[in-house]
Amino acid sequence: MKKKWSTLFYVLTLGGSVAVIYWIIKQGRALQSPLLTAKEVQSEGESAARSSFGEFAGSFSHNITEPIAVLLMQIIIIIFFARVFGYFFKKINQPAVIGEIFAGIILGPSVLGAYFPGVADFLFPVASLGTLNFLSQIGLILFMFIIGMELDLKSVGKQAYDAVVISHAGIIIPFTLGMGLAYFIYKDYAPATTSFLSFALFMGIAMGITAFPVLARILQEKNLIRTKLGVTALTCAAADDITAWCVLAAVIALVKSGSSLSIFFTIGLAVIYVLIMLKVVRPALLRLEYLYNHREKVRNAIIAILFMMLICSAYIASVIGINTLFGAFIAGIIMPPNLNFREIITDKIEDVSIILLLPLFFVITGLKTQMGLLNEGHLWVIFGWMLLVAIIGKFGGITIAAKVVGQSWRDSLSIGVLMNTRGLMQLIVLNIGYDLGILSPEIFAMMVLMALVTTFMTVPALDLIHWLIPEKASNRDS
Amino acid sequence: MKKKWSTLFYVLTLGGSVAVIYWIIKQGRALQSPLLTAKEVQSEGESAARSSFGEFAGSFSHNITEPIAVLLMQIIIIIFFARVFGYFFKKINQPAVIGEIFAGIILGPSVLGAYFPGVADFLFPVASLGTLNFLSQIGLILFMFIIGMELDLKSVGKQAYDAVVISHAGIIIPFTLGMGLAYFIYKDYAPATTSFLSFALFMGIAMGITAFPVLARILQEKNLIRTKLGVTALTCAAADDITAWCVLAAVIALVKSGSSLSIFFTIGLAVIYVLIMLKVVRPALLRLEYLYNHREKVRNAIIAILFMMLICSAYIASVIGINTLFGAFIAGIIMPPNLNFREIITDKIEDVSIILLLPLFFVITGLKTQMGLLNEGHLWVIFGWMLLVAIIGKFGGITIAAKVVGQSWRDSLSIGVLMNTRGLMQLIVLNIGYDLGILSPEIFAMMVLMALVTTFMTVPALDLIHWLIPEKASNRDS
Repeated sequence: MKKKWSTLFYVLTLGGSVAVIYWIIKQGRALQSPLLTAKEVQSEGESAARSSFGEFAGSFSHNITEPIAVLLMQIIIIIFFARVFGYFFKKINQPAVIGEIFAGIILGPSVLGAYFPGVADFLFPVASLGTLNFLSQIGLILFMFIIGMELDLKSVGKQAYDAVVISHAGIIIPFTLGMGLAYFIYKDYAPATTSFLSFALFMGIAMGITAFPVLARILQEKNLIRTKLGVTALTCAAADDITAWCVLAAVIALVKSGSSLSIFFTIGLAVIYVLIMLKVVRPALLRLEYLYNHREKVRNAIIAILFMMLICSAYIASVIGINTLFGAFIAGIIMPPNLNFREIITDKIEDVSIILLLPLFFVITGLKTQMGLLNEGHLWVIFGWMLLVAIIGKFGGITIAAKVVGQSWRDSLSIGVLMNTRGLMQLIVLNIGYDLGILSPEIFAMMVLMALVTTFMTVPALDLIHWLIPEKASNRDS
Repeated sequence: MKKKWSTLFYVLTLGGSVAVIYWIIKQGRALQSPLLTAKEVQSEGESAARSSFGEFAGSFSHNITEPIAVLLMQIIIIIFFARVFGYFFKKINQPAVIGEIFAGIILGPSVLGAYFPGVADFLFPVASLGTLNFLSQIGLILFMFIIGMELDLKSVGKQAYDAVVISHAGIIIPFTLGMGLAYFIYKDYAPATTSFLSFALFMGIAMGITAFPVLARILQEKNLIRTKLGVTALTCAAADDITAWCVLAAVIALVKSGSSLSIFFTIGLAVIYVLIMLKVVRPALLRLEYLYNHREKVRNAIIAILFMMLICSAYIASVIGINTLFGAFIAGIIMPPNLNFREIITDKIEDVSIILLLPLFFVITGLKTQMGLLNEGHLWVIFGWMLLVAIIGKFGGITIAAKVVGQSWRDSLSIGVLMNTRGLMQLIVLNIGYDLGILSPEIFAMMVLMALVTTFMTVPALDLIHWLIPEKASNRDS
């Protein structure tokens, strides 16, 4: 009975409303403004000429070039290629990240732009690159935050002495060699507006950096992460990362403020900023962690505060004149050491940043990389020197340092090979240098290639070393 | 002994390298390109005139206007104000979302722009709004995806009949009234380029929409979510949302393709798209969910596939000519029904989207809202009518429909009040209408105000109804 009534009510309401709507629309036609009516008559004339399918095709091609549609299409293409190449490289025992960088280079002017310029223009119109760049920056900020959180300062502390010696030797030796190389190539290959100092410092830092995340992933895939070798390599990489990013911050400050005294203001402010983060913000975060674990209701607010802390840190670092990414990195390092808490936060942002936004960075890098520029023999000679200096400096420096602090030859060589992985981190450094106008497109392309080669060689070289010098039982469980 | 050696090695390496670096830099000075040397001499002359602090201040003010710094600053300001206002509104028993919208209006031209134009220009330079808009769009896409996932289709199914009658009546009655109102105000207030049909349809849909998320949050805060009233209201809101978004998609298709036949292509394609999502993609997702639960190793890939599915769905919807957000909403609805799985996914994107990106949308809305336009009496008369039509249509329509299907007066009135909450959802609809050029700035401002008022009145009205008609024991646990 009730149901009958409601059905009647439903039908009457719907029917009545539709009738009223129809009547309103009919009446409304008389309201058209003269301007519009003229336009409509014209467009009716047009649509008589064109088929209505033609009109649909017109609006379709309009929809497809709308900014948000272009952005979504780019994200789809980029993630698709990044995942497919990543999958393929994993199959041949390489870290997926190399595949993702490869995908970026292929979608850029080196391959797609060179052979299918029309497709490249359609996929990556110049006007759309700004947004893509912003998104990739945000991805990097989240990513560096996670990297900072993944560094376990306590484990560095335990092996602090060895780690510091190895990693500092592993930075300063390739850094010096890189600056030496810069001396020989500056005149012919640096952009005209770059001073030698800026150019040389960036060459140095690019030689000295290690890709902590790639290293961690390789150790994990090789099942080495809990061995003595794995722990030492990870600790060294962590010390390396902290040192290298501090040096990079100083270099950026120097480059940005020129050679004048103002560098002291910048570095002074940077030191104050880091001290405030360590001495004021860090204890406050510990308090927040306590609240998070004991009060369900404020969790949302705490996550918001953490985001704020991260973004403020990135902002302050960028305003001081060191890089946003350094701010994000520091924000990650000062997070409460409780791994559980860090994991909760990581869980919330890792997938969005790593799956969704990081591939955009690779493609942005790829779009800047013009392999086609390396079309002359002498450029490849330079590239050869660059590769040699990078490998000798990093691999050689680390191996010697590791041997000196008392590692076995097997472990020393392994750590050397592992720390030679530049991967993603070098790309970040290169992009900063390129955006500051310090690296020319040729040097940028060479350095990207160098990063790829040193990352690519890690796993085979590690296998080779382990095959040449078999493991002794004593090393297994210490 | 070992330690001694390594210390010696460390000191020698570091000291030697520093010496070499110093020598390289000194040699490098001679390499300066003539161009640069001239420039440097000039700048040295300048810096003799200016203090080095002045130079630092110069680079500082340069850093502060860099695009990424501006964006970070905007995000900080926006999140800060959104949280503070949200907190304040929660204190006075209002959903936080109203406070966040308020923050947006205050940061926009209505308050900040009107009284502190210099600050407003510094905080939100026109050039920066594009990026902010993109980010807020991405936030909305993630948000609509979550909304789609939160809709529990099974619970709609159980009460399907009542929910459909109530929600359809609650859409069609305000929709019709809205179109009627449009008839009277079209001539004087619609933009000259908008046809009556488009204008009237948008007025209708803006009157008919309900804010499912605000409703859910109010029910939760009032501890009503597990009562019969709560379940009925939520189910109706879910049915309302699905219907309203389908109607909106049709309206957008109609508006975009004009009055010609091409609308049939658009709607035809939209139907095919929804069918493919339901019949092909949905079963495939069920398979993915199974894999996710049984194979640890592919989880990352599955999350990537889900992101791809979401973005593809949004892209296809946008290319067809319905809205990206409809695509995101459908992508959420077809997710595997397992609540656990949905929760995992929600966890991964909810915080980034709701805490970080959604406030950007409120501020973008606020930046478009020019309350200052409503400076004449007759505009406030129109606003009064608009509010009246909105409330009578939605609250009245729902209450009558709920009574007809057999709810008590108390519950009918309560559901009516709850469904009258327009909040965020209406703002989304209004933004779409504004961006399509269908709503004039005056109408947009009025409608935003209307959305605020109808959202604001929900909690007090609900309290009033419950105070006037006390609860019977029989309603408590069913």
